[in-house]
Amino acid sequence: MGISHQMRTYIDRASWIRKMFEEGARLKQIHGADNVYDFSLGNPNLPPPPKVKEALLRIIRNGAASLHSYMPNAGLPQTRERLAAYLAREHGTPLRAEHVIMTCGAAGALNVILKALLDPGDEVVVPAPFFVEYGFYAENHGGSLKTVPTTADFSLDLNALDAAVGLKTKVVLINSPNNPTGQIYDANALKELGELLRRKSRTARHPIFLVSDEPYRKIVYTAEKPPSIFQYYENALIATSFSKDLSLPGERIGYIAMHPQAEDQAALQGALILANRILGFVNAPALMQWILPDLLEESVDVSLYRAKRDRLLDGLKRAGYSCFEPPGAFYLFPQSPLKDDVTFVRLLVDEKILAVPGSGFGGPGYFRLAYCVDDQTIEGALPGFARAMDKARSMR
Amino acid sequence: MGISHQMRTYIDRASWIRKMFEEGARLKQIHGADNVYDFSLGNPNLPPPPKVKEALLRIIRNGAASLHSYMPNAGLPQTRERLAAYLAREHGTPLRAEHVIMTCGAAGALNVILKALLDPGDEVVVPAPFFVEYGFYAENHGGSLKTVPTTADFSLDLNALDAAVGLKTKVVLINSPNNPTGQIYDANALKELGELLRRKSRTARHPIFLVSDEPYRKIVYTAEKPPSIFQYYENALIATSFSKDLSLPGERIGYIAMHPQAEDQAALQGALILANRILGFVNAPALMQWILPDLLEESVDVSLYRAKRDRLLDGLKRAGYSCFEPPGAFYLFPQSPLKDDVTFVRLLVDEKILAVPGSGFGGPGYFRLAYCVDDQTIEGALPGFARAMDKARSMR
Repeated sequence: MGISHQMRTYIDRASWIRKMFEEGARLKQIHGADNVYDFSLGNPNLPPPPKVKEALLRIIRNGAASLHSYMPNAGLPQTRERLAAYLAREHGTPLRAEHVIMTCGAAGALNVILKALLDPGDEVVVPAPFFVEYGFYAENHGGSLKTVPTTADFSLDLNALDAAVGLKTKVVLINSPNNPTGQIYDANALKELGELLRRKSRTARHPIFLVSDEPYRKIVYTAEKPPSIFQYYENALIATSFSKDLSLPGERIGYIAMHPQAEDQAALQGALILANRILGFVNAPALMQWILPDLLEESVDVSLYRAKRDRLLDGLKRAGYSCFEPPGAFYLFPQSPLKDDVTFVRLLVDEKILAVPGSGFGGPGYFRLAYCVDDQTIEGALPGFARAMDKARSMR
Repeated sequence: MGISHQMRTYIDRASWIRKMFEEGARLKQIHGADNVYDFSLGNPNLPPPPKVKEALLRIIRNGAASLHSYMPNAGLPQTRERLAAYLAREHGTPLRAEHVIMTCGAAGALNVILKALLDPGDEVVVPAPFFVEYGFYAENHGGSLKTVPTTADFSLDLNALDAAVGLKTKVVLINSPNNPTGQIYDANALKELGELLRRKSRTARHPIFLVSDEPYRKIVYTAEKPPSIFQYYENALIATSFSKDLSLPGERIGYIAMHPQAEDQAALQGALILANRILGFVNAPALMQWILPDLLEESVDVSLYRAKRDRLLDGLKRAGYSCFEPPGAFYLFPQSPLKDDVTFVRLLVDEKILAVPGSGFGGPGYFRLAYCVDDQTIEGALPGFARAMDKARSMR
């Protein structure tokens, strides 16, 4: 066989999720895409803010000759500078341009960070449920994922973290607002986590880095903004993108921000920039970097996502589902009426509803619904959710 | 220390090249950028063809709502289809959409290929001199680079390849037109290489893949187009980008094309697509994928690069340098008048000329000049080249 053993394992491992997607594609072909209720993908359905189009047209009409040229691997200097000024306000931390590295989305940012930090055998500790790609990202760079449970409402479980973070831990990776639960970790929890990591770093005799993956930071339904990890821990890195708040997921534009007081700052910057280069990203896409300085205060209309969340949550509760009300992101993570979430998601497929089993996120007994979809998809699916619940009840 | 041991080694290893770049930046600050002759970077100085701007404005003005959305990890279906049709003509091989995967440039394409193919300990055989990043790319995915010499005019040395390709070889990686030499491998050499790899694959009992990195394919000064590896070997993959022929290096747009008769085709496609996803590329930048179908026949005006090559080559020869006349790419790779190319490149720095020592490319005793620069840079540098030659002669 030509491909590597690892990739063959990965492809086998991923095959049941793929089968479900193929089943979805088959359903759409038979019934038409409009008659299948697809909640399986976190692909934002809101268009980018109008200023994105304006900024693109302006820069392409008037852009310098160097618009599409190579640039420093860390990104355009003026973009890094404007972004650092914005982040300094947003996170109450004196970031400068050198603390920001432009990346190919948050997925690129996370790979760059893990490449820069992990030695073979290092562990990346992640509260579960978690974004399923994290396991691949850790293994790409010789590390492995170690999951820890969260509390009943998917908040950080500090005792569980205390037990899990050990001598082999190099990174604790959190995602808030969370995919798939929509939970936001509060300031108290982050403060305690910071103290825990300081203590554990002393014992381990190396810094344990806190990495916060936060592309949903602006997609929140609370009065207050999510707290910043930079307020509570110094060996901290933010990995994020403009995929959700500007609805630009296909353009692969994001960044890494590092705490100005992170240990061994110069080496860390150098390693991140070198990793961005040698992993083959080279630099984040140029055109998007040019327009970003004008878009930092922009966002899609979050009230539209809120209305979708409320409508779907209300419909599910009326049908008898139990579901945490998420303060952020655009996912619901209801309890599966059957213990086996994969079996229940198959019942949903019978109703032409596509969802992802919680098992795929290290959260068995739940399923994920991405509600970044048309209102008609939500309305159209509610009767099917009710029928699936009835069927599940009759099976118990 | 926080960063990984491997990255610390890399940063130390790269430090003398970086010092040279820092020296260049220092010179530009003192003397002004116009008074420093920078031949160190392969950053195309020709603007993109006018159709790039037209296509961008058209698609942004009229683009669908899904212009910036997620897409299949392999790329936009219509872009893959149009590109496959173009490649089928260009390479005389019946490629279809499924044989093309859109990537973040050629660097992204190479990382995706090596991630998909390499098991720990596998070797990647590369004719030297070679693009310096290849070593990192192989090591990123658990492999290692094994270099083989080329002939006096930098052509493939089939005997050396025969000796080097062994049981641990998984990939032979060629780059034609070549960076740094500008050489193009001819059809006879590729035919022999194909036969060699078929024979070696049988002995190794696994397919040895031929990977051709060819972003300079359209930057050629010969009457005939470079031959296609697809004509001579089936387990073959092309990794390339539009960075040089469309002058879009900052946009990170490229692709992988696989031979339709490559062994275990479905698994290979699956592995490449999964690698594109889990390495964090996710998909090649969306906007560039939308405009590509209209730009496949486009190219910068190669005659302008040819004129620069001729002027610089002529000037160097008059000053006593010995240099291979390259049929492609935009680099000269002259012999260093001093045995130690690093010392000679320092003499050039004294003349405010920035070049890269051949040692950095596995080609000691030479230095690389990227002539994708303004004509004034070439004219202005010629007296300095002559003085450096005189100085070198006096040192021998």
